[in-house]
Amino acid sequence: MNDFKISDIYNLRPRYSETDQMGVVYYGNYATYFEIGRVELLRNLGMSYAEMERTGTMLPVVHMTIDFKKGAAYDQEVYLETKITELPTRKISFYHTLRDEEGAVLVSGYVVLVFVDTQTFKPKYCPEQLKNLLLKASLGQ
Amino acid sequence: MNDFKISDIYNLRPRYSETDQMGVVYYGNYATYFEIGRVELLRNLGMSYAEMERTGTMLPVVHMTIDFKKGAAYDQEVYLETKITELPTRKISFYHTLRDEEGAVLVSGYVVLVFVDTQTFKPKYCPEQLKNLLLKASLGQ
Amino acid sequence: MNDFKISDIYNLRPRYSETDQMGVVYYGNYATYFEIGRVELLRNLGMSYAEMERTGTMLPVVHMTIDFKKGAAYDQEVYLETKITELPTRKISFYHTLRDEEGAVLVSGYVVLVFVDTQTFKPKYCPEQLKNLLLKASLGQ
Amino acid sequence: MNDFKISDIYNLRPRYSETDQMGVVYYGNYATYFEIGRVELLRNLGMSYAEMERTGTMLPVVHMTIDFKKGAAYDQEVYLETKITELPTRKISFYHTLRDEEGAVLVSGYVVLVFVDTQTFKPKYCPEQLKNLLLKASLGQ
Repeated sequence: MNDFKISDIYNLRPRYSETDQMGVVYYGNYATYFEIGRVELLRNLGMSYAEMERTGTMLPVVHMTIDFKKGAAYDQEVYLETKITELPTRKISFYHTLRDEEGAVLVSGYVVLVFVDTQTFKPKYCPEQLKNLLLKASLGQ
Repeated sequence: MNDFKISDIYNLRPRYSETDQMGVVYYGNYATYFEIGRVELLRNLGMSYAEMERTGTMLPVVHMTIDFKKGAAYDQEVYLETKITELPTRKISFYHTLRDEEGAVLVSGYVVLVFVDTQTFKPKYCPEQLKNLLLKASLGQ
Repeated sequence: MNDFKISDIYNLRPRYSETDQMGVVYYGNYATYFEIGRVELLRNLGMSYAEMERTGTMLPVVHMTIDFKKGAAYDQEVYLETKITELPTRKISFYHTLRDEEGAVLVSGYVVLVFVDTQTFKPKYCPEQLKNLLLKASLGQ
Repeated sequence: MNDFKISDIYNLRPRYSETDQMGVVYYGNYATYFEIGRVELLRNLGMSYAEMERTGTMLPVVHMTIDFKKGAAYDQEVYLETKITELPTRKISFYHTLRDEEGAVLVSGYVVLVFVDTQTFKPKYCPEQLKNLLLKASLGQ
């Protein structure tokens, strides 16, 4: 599965509410950006996370590693790259890199989530529909 | 019911995450303080909002008015006064005043919530248990 | 000044982080949406709020009134209308209406901000540049 | 410096605003709890982070690793243990463990921050005052 790779870029502007008195985005708020990166990558594959949750699968986060090089400024246009490099099993991992307009890395991170049944709260495997969309997208990229 | 009045004071310190680049608490975050003021007032009456929600009644907000005199600073000790001045029916109203250590008003607000059944999402009357606790507390104050 | 009116619409999707355990957007988070509505309206007029702050004028909020009809759901496409109906003096007022895809009102609010010098923290008048952009835009709408 | 160890416990109740529609605290919000754990540990040593920032030293985060075992519920009493196991140089590292009332681990994490001059934004060494307080506290524990 060495060739498996899916990536997506989402651009956003930090909101005033996301800054703190250091004058840049508060360190906890990048987790929100990462979540948006994941959701938009899935949407571009043809998968709505909201729909996935309504149909019985939710994705709680079990691990996050995050490195902060430089804070993102209010209203600055930033680019969030989100990658999947392995086909998910019971877990799905995302690699996130937030860059400024010149391409300099501001923040990078790695997030692992698990598939959980919304009724029983028990772990489950990646839904077939998502697996198929990922495989299809990986071939196309 | 002119004499009905319940009040409670809760002190807190603004968190770093709650500030913005203006160097004071972001204006949207006072809504969170007000919520804490309500919950702690109820707890002091002997009522857990979490328990109330688990037993079938939730309290969505339908209205908020808020006036900002001066921003609260990070880690500054502030005092939140929360008052109920009328016995609730289908609605319950709270008056909130946030003050600094010298008693100067920083922010004041008024929030109206409605009682809603957590299963049917239909409006309902104030639970008897809460009404009784409020009446009892009003006599005691 | 009866004819003065500027409006703008911004569409957004509530983020997962903005929901609470009631399953809709937390009531304090609409303040963030309103802020985005203001900033995007100004941007469409040719004015960057970030730039305005860097060049000496900031806009703290002094009042907000907000009515909640129905909570916005995670990832639901919503439309935020932002209006200015009076030429600003020392204050500027914005009227915000958040609607769902069918046009039903979810939340509406009214926010008043004051112009403040970023160095002296003293109140000031609306910068001429903004006033001119507003007048020009009002003629065009 | 093998024996260097400082720890502190802070208890808190998750706020309604911190939950998401999964019914537990949103994964990004634990970063805020960790920050509170650091600030309260420093306060107990006799050091105000707010004061440290006002007197020229700020502490941006450069790294965070976080493992999520179980989500914290709204209003549940939780205990946050914060540890320092090495004397800081240009960096300071904190180990955080959030536990429920029975002592079960909910979330654990590791955060690295750097000392930065608030005027020049240049890295600097741990202020002597903090170093001395840490050494003194380590002897006492």
